[in-house]
Amino acid sequence: MNSSQFREASHAAIEEIIQYYDTLASRPVLSTVSPGYLRPLLPNGPPQTGESWPAIQSDIERVIMPGLTHWQSPNFMAFFPASSTFPSMLGEMYSAAFTAPAFNWLCSPAVTELETVVLDWLAGLFALPECYLSKGEGGGVIQGSASEAVVTVMVAARERIVQRRCGHMEDGEEKEQKMGEERIKLVALGGEHSHSSVQKAANIAGVRFRSVPAPKSSGFRVTAQSLRQKIEECKSKGIEPFFMGLTLGTTNTCAVDEFEEIVAVAKDYPDIWIHVDAAYAGAALALPEYQYLAAPLAAFDSFNTNMHKWLLTNFDASVLWVKQRRSLTDALSITPSYLRNEFSDSGLVTDYRDWQIPLGRRFRALKIWFVLRTYGVDGIQAHLRNTIKLGELFHSLVVSRPDLFTVVAGPAFALTVLTVNPEKRGAARGARVTPASSPDPNHEAYLNDFTSDAESQYLANANAVTKEVYERINSGGEFFLTSTTMEGIFTIRVVSANPMAEEKYLRRVFDVLVETAEGVLAARERGK
Amino acid sequence: MNSSQFREASHAAIEEIIQYYDTLASRPVLSTVSPGYLRPLLPNGPPQTGESWPAIQSDIERVIMPGLTHWQSPNFMAFFPASSTFPSMLGEMYSAAFTAPAFNWLCSPAVTELETVVLDWLAGLFALPECYLSKGEGGGVIQGSASEAVVTVMVAARERIVQRRCGHMEDGEEKEQKMGEERIKLVALGGEHSHSSVQKAANIAGVRFRSVPAPKSSGFRVTAQSLRQKIEECKSKGIEPFFMGLTLGTTNTCAVDEFEEIVAVAKDYPDIWIHVDAAYAGAALALPEYQYLAAPLAAFDSFNTNMHKWLLTNFDASVLWVKQRRSLTDALSITPSYLRNEFSDSGLVTDYRDWQIPLGRRFRALKIWFVLRTYGVDGIQAHLRNTIKLGELFHSLVVSRPDLFTVVAGPAFALTVLTVNPEKRGAARGARVTPASSPDPNHEAYLNDFTSDAESQYLANANAVTKEVYERINSGGEFFLTSTTMEGIFTIRVVSANPMAEEKYLRRVFDVLVETAEGVLAARERGK
Repeated sequence: MNSSQFREASHAAIEEIIQYYDTLASRPVLSTVSPGYLRPLLPNGPPQTGESWPAIQSDIERVIMPGLTHWQSPNFMAFFPASSTFPSMLGEMYSAAFTAPAFNWLCSPAVTELETVVLDWLAGLFALPECYLSKGEGGGVIQGSASEAVVTVMVAARERIVQRRCGHMEDGEEKEQKMGEERIKLVALGGEHSHSSVQKAANIAGVRFRSVPAPKSSGFRVTAQSLRQKIEECKSKGIEPFFMGLTLGTTNTCAVDEFEEIVAVAKDYPDIWIHVDAAYAGAALALPEYQYLAAPLAAFDSFNTNMHKWLLTNFDASVLWVKQRRSLTDALSITPSYLRNEFSDSGLVTDYRDWQIPLGRRFRALKIWFVLRTYGVDGIQAHLRNTIKLGELFHSLVVSRPDLFTVVAGPAFALTVLTVNPEKRGAARGARVTPASSPDPNHEAYLNDFTSDAESQYLANANAVTKEVYERINSGGEFFLTSTTMEGIFTIRVVSANPMAEEKYLRRVFDVLVETAEGVLAARERGK
Repeated sequence: MNSSQFREASHAAIEEIIQYYDTLASRPVLSTVSPGYLRPLLPNGPPQTGESWPAIQSDIERVIMPGLTHWQSPNFMAFFPASSTFPSMLGEMYSAAFTAPAFNWLCSPAVTELETVVLDWLAGLFALPECYLSKGEGGGVIQGSASEAVVTVMVAARERIVQRRCGHMEDGEEKEQKMGEERIKLVALGGEHSHSSVQKAANIAGVRFRSVPAPKSSGFRVTAQSLRQKIEECKSKGIEPFFMGLTLGTTNTCAVDEFEEIVAVAKDYPDIWIHVDAAYAGAALALPEYQYLAAPLAAFDSFNTNMHKWLLTNFDASVLWVKQRRSLTDALSITPSYLRNEFSDSGLVTDYRDWQIPLGRRFRALKIWFVLRTYGVDGIQAHLRNTIKLGELFHSLVVSRPDLFTVVAGPAFALTVLTVNPEKRGAARGARVTPASSPDPNHEAYLNDFTSDAESQYLANANAVTKEVYERINSGGEFFLTSTTMEGIFTIRVVSANPMAEEKYLRRVFDVLVETAEGVLAARERGK
């Protein structure tokens, strides 16, 4: 493919992408293909001789499109969003053109330096404490995903405590043995509703894992008391907590752990590395009204959020800050002869390979830079406030129908978590929308323990009805929602943080929920 | 940025990219900026209000371009190449547009299914043994980099042996303790010239690491004997080898470990997971004349190569195959409630999140698919053969000047490793080019041990001269070469595997080498 063929091909690709975005709202959000759909559509191997772009491009529509789940559709309200925006795509184009594995500064100085600058910009935007800026002992780095970030900091934390125990010994087999013995005592902690990647990171790092309770009664948050208790419980058994994964916005309910109170715990246990996973909700720190959440980070060790969720940047762009960049390089730096150069040796430059698991890395700072500049601070804040407000609107619609729905959590960061009542309660209160802040009158029903026979029967029915409503909506194809189960309660999650989110889609999904719930309840009534 | 602004912006970006590629050969390949160049060129934070694309785009030339090292330039002969080609860029464009974290099948079935198909295509192209195809118990997955691949398989290997030792025990604290005790005995092995990522992986996995000698006398290859000896040495000390990283094409010299002989070692030690890192040279398996190297893989456990080095695909696209996909999922699968779905539960689909460290993943199969189809098998083979031939040509030029140069290794997979002689030997044999296969008459000088005073003085002088030549060439800006030191020998590596490589650039770099070497030697002569 020569330059002029590329020009033609890329123009055609751009038109297809524009057309895709322009029609996103009208496409069934969830793919309806069956497992194995794709293989029969393709030959058994690559062609012997090259094909032209038109032949290849036509297969996008024929082969790929039917198998896509449209994460950018405004009807995608599942998981958390995966944004992609036009300026972000432009960043990917240049990044691919300027391809460099960029494992050290010399590999392509712009890749490293723009990353440092952009991460400092973001630290400012999020009001992170000064200790996370590159001018001191901390700094930020772009990782591929929040899961990579948590493995990276967990390994750094593991080696930090092992070095504190064994650093005085001379290198050699004896030290190695002692380091191994220290490692097997270690236990990583994560909140009960921390992301599964914390446990996965512990598996990768080869250490134990224990979950810190975050029950319904504490709003699914890890409390200082609960954390302290788990730490002491571990210590009493001779195992040593060295890492705690806190969450700012859990996947289930967007709960925020008790940061301010946990600051004191951090001070009491300086060997425990405290990481804050704010993969989704961290974006809200760009809003002054949420920045009080950033202050306690000064007492913790690392913080991570994903630009590729709520912040208008396509996957992958997970931004991680650490308070002591040395902790990363101490654990991860290895410099063989073929990677040495005068700049790295001088210590004046950053070699990000020592801040991450992979050696090579893409030029991901470009797309973040393009997004920040295209939207500006105002545009980013407007996007966040708009989607939060849509979440509040959706919540207010849900509480306007206490006959049908119960809110289990939210509205928080554009997420509402709800169940369908197992039977219709009295008459609907009509379509009157209550203010966003109005509490759900049914909510307290979910604060009990479902221990009596009647309660557990109620829960079983509620779960069955909610699950049926959930499955009917997803199989309908118009919306994609996800569910989650907490303390035995099956719930539906509705997220309105998509860049294309609009009031009409939230009103529509609410109508579909009402319609489906009424249909399911009526059918059950008839079946009695 | 709306659709029509994006159309305009992307057309302008495409023109800039085309212009960049059209002028690559005439740009100084290595950036000449000093550390810290970029920050003063930018404001202290993101703009308050959004900027227009022309304002942003103009900063590419002003801010970014000066800090780029041009890996796609035909004058880039350092490290190994990082290809990027137009069809690959088109793949990135669609991948960004269709952004999905794609951690499970349901997230976007096309992402998973195209990956499985394309990896089977590649397995066929590389003549990998049947056991690596997805139809059996194996299969392939796209990782971000060879370093991620090696961590992934090392963790799988660690858990495989730990489960073999402890699988019979009941889950609980006792088992956990026993698993920890097993883990601290473990030692990962890598060849002396294996990539540093093997040792880094051991650090991440929290296990010991030992290097298996691969001396000059064995052509820098790991031999079966050397491996066997290291295994027994470890065992005699009570530590347990569970992983061996072999290399097909080491970074230093493109050496290939003694695969065929190591097959027997693999059979004798079934608890050792044998991984083949073919990050760069694995591409050559697309050529029938190299496919004999693939047969022994049937006795090993995993194989990895990077499409983003020699195979025309932009970073990142590292393809990994395992013989038992269950080893990966056993070590890495965690399924919380919010990731469950009927398809994953049915076991009919692949959830690639369980084959890797991160949860989310990009749609990287697209760009590989575009590259394979645009070039076809013929085009890919032509590219590989052309660049190998250019390497042979360069080698033959080097051996035509035994007065100035000594070949330490190669030509192998388009790489030649050389030193400059510490003083000019007799008269040059003129410009007569010897056939590619002709051995270097000086080579045997580098097979001795440099133990006598005269020998070590010779080596010290050769190193000083070679280093000076190397530094002068790189600071000249026309070419970028890398160096490496093996057994005390400082060498220059010249790689001709770039998609834009042409005979004229190899002849030119040779002329520059001659000119620089003669200048350096003459100056030394004068200085005596």
